[in-house]
Amino acid sequence: MRHRMEKYIKSLQLLIIKEIESLDGKKFEIDRWEREQGGEGISCILQDGNVFEKAGVNISIVYGNLPEAAVKQMKSRNKEIDPSKGPHPFFAAGISIVMHPHNPYAPTIHLNYRYFEINNKDDKDGTSKLWWFGGGSDLTPSYLFEDDAIHFHKTLKDACDKHDVTYYPEFKKWCDKYFYLQHRGEARGVGGIFFDDMDRKPAEEIFALIKQCGDAFLPSYVPIIKKRMNMKFGEEEKHWQQLRRGRYVEFNLIWDRGTKFGLQTPGARIESIFMSLPLTARWEYMHVPEKNSREEKLIDVLKNPRDWV
Amino acid sequence: MRHRMEKYIKSLQLLIIKEIESLDGKKFEIDRWEREQGGEGISCILQDGNVFEKAGVNISIVYGNLPEAAVKQMKSRNKEIDPSKGPHPFFAAGISIVMHPHNPYAPTIHLNYRYFEINNKDDKDGTSKLWWFGGGSDLTPSYLFEDDAIHFHKTLKDACDKHDVTYYPEFKKWCDKYFYLQHRGEARGVGGIFFDDMDRKPAEEIFALIKQCGDAFLPSYVPIIKKRMNMKFGEEEKHWQQLRRGRYVEFNLIWDRGTKFGLQTPGARIESIFMSLPLTARWEYMHVPEKNSREEKLIDVLKNPRDWV
Repeated sequence: MRHRMEKYIKSLQLLIIKEIESLDGKKFEIDRWEREQGGEGISCILQDGNVFEKAGVNISIVYGNLPEAAVKQMKSRNKEIDPSKGPHPFFAAGISIVMHPHNPYAPTIHLNYRYFEINNKDDKDGTSKLWWFGGGSDLTPSYLFEDDAIHFHKTLKDACDKHDVTYYPEFKKWCDKYFYLQHRGEARGVGGIFFDDMDRKPAEEIFALIKQCGDAFLPSYVPIIKKRMNMKFGEEEKHWQQLRRGRYVEFNLIWDRGTKFGLQTPGARIESIFMSLPLTARWEYMHVPEKNSREEKLIDVLKNPRDWV
Repeated sequence: MRHRMEKYIKSLQLLIIKEIESLDGKKFEIDRWEREQGGEGISCILQDGNVFEKAGVNISIVYGNLPEAAVKQMKSRNKEIDPSKGPHPFFAAGISIVMHPHNPYAPTIHLNYRYFEINNKDDKDGTSKLWWFGGGSDLTPSYLFEDDAIHFHKTLKDACDKHDVTYYPEFKKWCDKYFYLQHRGEARGVGGIFFDDMDRKPAEEIFALIKQCGDAFLPSYVPIIKKRMNMKFGEEEKHWQQLRRGRYVEFNLIWDRGTKFGLQTPGARIESIFMSLPLTARWEYMHVPEKNSREEKLIDVLKNPRDWV
């Protein structure tokens, strides 16, 4: 599975980069890196493009011994790891995408899929091996277009339904709960799907789901971005987008478990982890949108997540 | 002590606001708020002023029962609190200041002083009461002017020396250690002083130190800001400042214990906590300053904190 997941995320990365480059007209900067403690990655960033303010399509294949802080975090997630029986060799392969467009009417998208394996040190036959898949994809608009939210959710639902019709409703709720700024009492965006610790079916079947969802990235996003990237906007819309970018930073730095895991991992590549941050963001004291404005309508949806399909 | 600390921070807030208003030419917006679970505060914010991009001078007096997460945090700091003997009534009074100037040559300053008390529930005679003072002040330039760093540190050293000559060297080291972005391997700025859990002398004596350090705010900062606020700068300097603002956001959202405590406290006033964030910030993938540039010289000092006096 390690090898096949690695192969899949590499091919998906290539496909997405090509398509986004043809949309933007600017090329991605491609950085290959190695991790001293084990592993490698390819970070592809498009900064200050024609359509995108900042877009990153990263893959990483990381292995070594699980840092102690991560062991504790696993324990708290009911993973059967005995901290005293360490070190615990781990392997993780994943693809992470975040795209922040220039146009305030065009939404930010995020995708991440990952495969994780942990072995107990003395394990000879592999029976004590833990493994799981996780990930998802969510959409973060500054202005709400219901059509966009419906298209995005419908594409993800179709992908999930091909495997198990119980997946989408479960993953949709999970996403609303995970991408949530507790301190603001609002969701990050209009949601999508999210799941973690997925090992309830044979690895083969979950891998097929992961591929389906990964392949759904371009169809879920490209039609939306094409519709919005050339819409006219003014200072007011840009200003609101910058404030929303601030919330994006808050979520990623305060709440995101993936970012936290990254910061805990010795030798982690900070620049790759932080590619998810927008190019620019803004914080204003006590900014409150006007009554019945489009800005307030977005906040309403973030405070009361809707069912889109 | 509760009452006297409250009185002191209120008078200091007034004094600082007056002086900063006369420097900036724009008035602070003054918000009084009450906390449902107990307590009140006054947030004073000057946004988009003539000298300051964003300046906040906040006080808060908060009491109630310590949230469970905070009890755990106290335990990890070796405070003698028995989680099973809760709820633990607490009282906290503090003043927090952050000032981000427009001019990239003018440094950001931060100050915070606070008094904390915790009682055990069944305590009738006050003997099981825990109390301590904490706080400090630090300077964060985008461009290094050694004179400014020396003036800032000297003013703080003079204030500390009036009480105990061992304070400054100890608090200076503590500050370098606390205001440190582990994931970047760099300090937030050129430091200053910081201390916490201060109960090693009679409360009366520590309160006198707190007042001395609070009173040193204006003399430590105003001469610097007057020197830098009208210096000519261009796009390049503004750009670098915005990247440094990004690091400021990273510290406050990932590492700052005060922000974390705030976010954990039920009914906390988010807008007051987040006044410390700059108005705008920027993140660029793989930004590396040019060799021997002024930008690189700043990074050198952040990676290798210096003794300034």
